[in-house]
Amino acid sequence: MDPDAVAKAFVEHYYSTFDANRPGLVSLYQEGSMLTFEGQKIQGSQNIVAKLTGLPFQQCKHNITTVDCQPSGPAGGMLVFVSGNLQLAGEQHALKFSQMFHLISNQGNYYVFNDIFRLNYA
Amino acid sequence: MDPDAVAKAFVEHYYSTFDANRPGLVSLYQEGSMLTFEGQKIQGSQNIVAKLTGLPFQQCKHNITTVDCQPSGPAGGMLVFVSGNLQLAGEQHALKFSQMFHLISNQGNYYVFNDIFRLNYA
Repeated sequence: MDPDAVAKAFVEHYYSTFDANRPGLVSLYQEGSMLTFEGQKIQGSQNIVAKLTGLPFQQCKHNITTVDCQPSGPAGGMLVFVSGNLQLAGEQHALKFSQMFHLISNQGNYYVFNDIFRLNYA
Repeated sequence: MDPDAVAKAFVEHYYSTFDANRPGLVSLYQEGSMLTFEGQKIQGSQNIVAKLTGLPFQQCKHNITTVDCQPSGPAGGMLVFVSGNLQLAGEQHALKFSQMFHLISNQGNYYVFNDIFRLNYA
């Protein structure tokens, strides 16, 4: 399958799950997975999803601006680099963000091994 | 060595070379290296540096805002995620950018295997 199509499908799945059912993100991470969220380092699927579900907003909508992807090496991993806007309920202005994922293939399914998120302040 | 210190040292070396001696970046890439620059895919150290030296500005200065890093897997690779500002000579406003690197260790030295760059438009 075309890597760009896989990346795009992953990104759509990830953010639609984030916006509609944040606890459902747990299935996309594993125990060795790492998240660096605004500089805070978190490891393991349960801890990562606890962080994401504990963010101080309930409703949000991610709008994606760009998706770039590259193979990360011979082992079949994929790097996905995203930029976009995060609209929080009740806020006038969307927040710009950049995020990267390193997806690892596990018997045909990808999970997130690395995840780094940063807001892009104006 | 502390991975965060390695990442910070790499980032300082990369952007100071970019700003002072762009052709010198060639030593940081290898033939398998990939750059995606504003969505354009380029492979190989010579092609990558030809792209970077051919950008339509001569003098520039990168100012780094954040550097995050994570190990990319058991093989000793490292993911480095950067945000910052790019000031072009003669331009009033700096351009915001995000960039990620996947560094691969080769007998104790790192080279850039993956490089994805995006401007963050306001």
